[in-house]
This record gives sequence, structure tokens and C-alpha cells, in this order.
Amino acid sequence: MTFQVTILGCSSARPTLSMHHTAHVLRVHEQFFLIDCGEGTQLQLLRYGINPLKINAVFLSHLHGDHVYGIFGLLSTMAMMGRQRGLTIVAPRPFEEMLRSHFGYFAVELPYALDIREVDARRAGEVVWENRVLTVSTVPLRHRVPCCGYLFRERTPDWNVHRHMVEGYGLDPGRIAALKRGEDVVLADGGLLTAAEATYRPYEGRSYAFCSDTTASGRVATLVRGVDLLYHEATYLHADKALAARTGHSTALQAARVAKKAEAGHLVLGHYSARYKELSGLAAEAQSEFPEAVLGEDGLVLTVEKDHSLKIARI
Amino acid sequence: MTFQVTILGCSSARPTLSMHHTAHVLRVHEQFFLIDCGEGTQLQLLRYGINPLKINAVFLSHLHGDHVYGIFGLLSTMAMMGRQRGLTIVAPRPFEEMLRSHFGYFAVELPYALDIREVDARRAGEVVWENRVLTVSTVPLRHRVPCCGYLFRERTPDWNVHRHMVEGYGLDPGRIAALKRGEDVVLADGGLLTAAEATYRPYEGRSYAFCSDTTASGRVATLVRGVDLLYHEATYLHADKALAARTGHSTALQAARVAKKAEAGHLVLGHYSARYKELSGLAAEAQSEFPEAVLGEDGLVLTVEKDHSLKIARI
Repeated sequence: MTFQVTILGCSSARPTLSMHHTAHVLRVHEQFFLIDCGEGTQLQLLRYGINPLKINAVFLSHLHGDHVYGIFGLLSTMAMMGRQRGLTIVAPRPFEEMLRSHFGYFAVELPYALDIREVDARRAGEVVWENRVLTVSTVPLRHRVPCCGYLFRERTPDWNVHRHMVEGYGLDPGRIAALKRGEDVVLADGGLLTAAEATYRPYEGRSYAFCSDTTASGRVATLVRGVDLLYHEATYLHADKALAARTGHSTALQAARVAKKAEAGHLVLGHYSARYKELSGLAAEAQSEFPEAVLGEDGLVLTVEKDHSLKIARI
Repeated sequence: MTFQVTILGCSSARPTLSMHHTAHVLRVHEQFFLIDCGEGTQLQLLRYGINPLKINAVFLSHLHGDHVYGIFGLLSTMAMMGRQRGLTIVAPRPFEEMLRSHFGYFAVELPYALDIREVDARRAGEVVWENRVLTVSTVPLRHRVPCCGYLFRERTPDWNVHRHMVEGYGLDPGRIAALKRGEDVVLADGGLLTAAEATYRPYEGRSYAFCSDTTASGRVATLVRGVDLLYHEATYLHADKALAARTGHSTALQAARVAKKAEAGHLVLGHYSARYKELSGLAAEAQSEFPEAVLGEDGLVLTVEKDHSLKIARI
């Protein structure tokens, strides 16, 4: 029951050989979700061993090239790999019109169906995807163009019956099912076993919020309150906060303040400006406000465990 | 006086970590020309130490993604790097309409001028670029969409006067200039010195033809006759020639036959299908027809020397 984010790219507008354009893969159990898709994302997937055919849905934050230019090649590559299963793409308007126009110029005909869901980037908390393990809702961001963050919430798993009660009372499948539904049951000896005493939650559902690109905002903090893992862009050092404000971006300190206000469990930074040769300054100023802030980088794998702790690894 | 091709990508439609999408850089003296621009070309330029700001012009063969998808990001990166000098892009129709449409959707405003020259991919030998060192002309190819190859011809340098004559006759600058213009001159002692005996060509101009994507064609061989270095696509093994014909591509053997018929000095192959894990079969069948055939690969640098020999290096 994995809940894991792999960072494919941590640069902002200008990529380098070690910092690719923005793309994250969220794995929830055996389902994979791609969030943003900068140029070269298909090669980053290959590099980190993530099969594009396993991707259930793509979420795009906004129509800036460093977050989208990889989608064209990725869709074609999926076709060449034999994809037949439909693909959902969630993105702000006018993504669909842009993509159809693009397909026309490049004579693209995909052998699988695209289910494009255009979101209104101004509406908060709109559920844009859900299935039996996950719901995804919108988090309006403030950028130079309509920009939508996403909050991914794993559904809390069903109630389980304590094993020692199953064995101790010799519960049959019918009584176990009833207890899981929250019903009290009469035991073979006539006694009552309440659902409240017999059942427990295996763990609380985990959550991940993707917030890029954006000016730091208290509203975002409110919308993602209590999130386990917050990804917040940190394009600039706070010394460059005027530049951040002018370009619709955040400083590392501002990102940390949002995480603190949101009472996020963990914070990971990214979308760094190419002007900084050394990223330690960004980490230091974020950690001054939010000590557990993590510097995102290409190939970093962040796993939110069932106890909501964070495990960090590098591919 | 370099005449050098660097291969940035040798894959066809599906890239791998070691075989990127098509892009070549031709360096003629201190001028750089980019030919095709698949996804990730800006990173390949970075990897191989070629400054995008030095690129004088871009030549695109056709509107298929594996030859074009890198142009969007590259143009933006040039802007962020501070490019002010205009950039020429030569491409088949409707490249300009496609690009303008794209710019609209992505709110791109470049701080430098684009000089887009749309070529008629059916017309042979049309000069689409020229300056004091180079002319570039069209080579119609046969593919599933309009597709244009390019023939790059270095101009043969001006006549030089033999140094021993300058010294032996004590030639002044006026007489030297006249001889270089092809005029005979009267020496101080009244004797005649003819341009024919006093001058020589430092070397003959070198040439490079880029032919991808295309069904192998005798017409192409005729159009590039005598070229020093022919790049010809070799997507398939000859065993898959029916597939090559159906998809508008060539086999390695067919590419070699074109080189032989064209009496090319040298042949370099590329645009390999991802179906072949091992490329040695492609090399072997090309060399059976054209012994000097070279297997192009990412990072290969091919220099045509002044004596028209080929020097091969790897970055």
C-alpha cells in the first residue's frame, strides 16, 4: 500500500543535465499519476524505471512550456508502446483546444482514447478525479496564467476486525462483514459484540499536495491544511522576493511559511531558478521556518508511510 | 576552418537514454547550424558543450514530433539566455502557422526576431540560406508528410597567391589583390605574371547532405552527387524493407546504395528503429555496399578535413 512521490525534475524554466523540467510521479498502491510533464519527461520516466503504460492519469498545472512540453512526445511514445487503455488528462483551459490544434499540425492519431478534463483553475476543492483509492481536488494557485494545484487524498481503508476477536469469538464471515459495515452483532453465546470495540482503521488515508507555480498564499495553506506531504515551489531565495512577486513565484522562506500555516506533515521544495549554482541557501532559509523542509531533486523518492512519517530515498 | 557535424540524436520515433531524437549541429568555420530539433535537443546541446546562442539558423526537415518537439523549449531557453540576435528557421509549411498558434496558447513572446523561411519540400536545389561561407539548398525527400533534406555547401575559399611568388617578385598589395581577382599583372621589371601561374585555391569547398526521413530514392542520389558527407536515414534492416516502404523510411542497405550512386565521399547512418537492440547488423549491411559507411550515434563528431578526408571522434 505505497504512497510515494518520485521527482523527475526540479528545475524551473531553464533545465540542466541534473535538473530537468517539472514532473512528479505519484504512486498510490499500484496506480501511477503523472503531475506536470516538462520537456524530456519520457526520458526521465525511462531513467527511473517507471513504465509510461502504467500511468492512469496526467495532471497539468498550467500552460507554461516547462510544465507541459513533454506531453506531446509522451503521448506518441505511449502509442508506439502499444497503449490501448484510455488516458485521462486533467488541465486548465484551453489545454484541449491547444492539444487538438497540435495534433492537427503534426498529423497525430492516437490509438487510445484521451479523456481530457478541463478544470477551472479559480475553483477550490473541485473533485477532478476519484476512484476507489484516491480523490483529487483542485487548489487554485496565483501565477501569471491560470494555474491549478492538486490535492491527492488516499481514501482511508475500510474498517478491519481485530484478528484476536475473529479467533476468540469464532466469528463467521457474515458477522465479520456486518462488523466492518459498522453493525453490532449477536454472538453464538447470545452476547453482543459492538462494531466500536471489534473494529479498527488499518491507517488513516495519506495526502499529497502539488503547488507549483504560485505566489505564496495563505489561501493555499488553508486549502491544503493538514496535508501529509506538501510540494511547494521555491523558485527564489528570499533576498529575491521582489522578483518572486513580479514573476508569480515564491521564495523558499515563503514556501516554508505556507507549510507551517498549513500544518503540513512534511514539505518538499522544487522549481529552482537556474541563477543559483548552490541550492543549500534555499534549504537553509526554508528550514529556518519549517525545520523538516526537504530539498527536492531529480530522482528523489518520498514515501509517506502508513504512520504518516516520511521516508526519503534516491534512485 | 572547421567543417564538422555533431550528432545529438540517432534514434527514430522512440528515444532511449543513449539514443535521443534527431538533431545534428553543423559547424562551418565559426558558424553553427542546427538541423532538426527533437525533444531534449536543448539538453543535448548542453551535454556536448554547444552554446545555443551561437546557432545561426535552424533547418527542420518535416513536421513530425521526433524532429521538431525540441524547438519550443529551445526557443524559450535562448530567450532566457539573453538572445537578442535574430534567428532564422527554415522549415516546410505550415511550420510558421503551427509555431504562431503554439506561441498563442503558451503566451510566448520572444525578445529576438524570428525569420521563418518556409520551403516548398517538392522543389529541388532551391537556395534557402546563403552567406559568405555557405549555401544551403533543398533536397526533396519522400516521406509520409512533406519532407525536405538540405545540402550544405561551403563556398570554395578565395584564390591565394603563392607565397614564394609574393616574396620572389616583391609583389605589392595592389598586384596581389589584382592576381586574386584573376587579373594578370605587369611586374616591376616589365615582365607579365599571369593569375593562372601565381594563384591557387587553398582547398575546395566541402559539403554535407542531410537526408531524413525518406524512402531511398535515386533522385536524392542525383541531387547530392559528389557530396563529401551524406547523412542518410537507415531506420530498418533490409529484412524489414516492406516495413520501410510502408512507413516512408529506408533500410541501411538502401541508404548505402544511395551513397554509392551519389559517389558520396562518406556516409553516416542514423534514425534507427528502437526494435533493434544491436546496431551492428545495420552497419554490416550498409558496409557490404559502401565499405566506409559509419554508424552515427549520439555524441559522434564527424569532421570533413580540407583534403576531404573524414576524421571521426566521440565526445
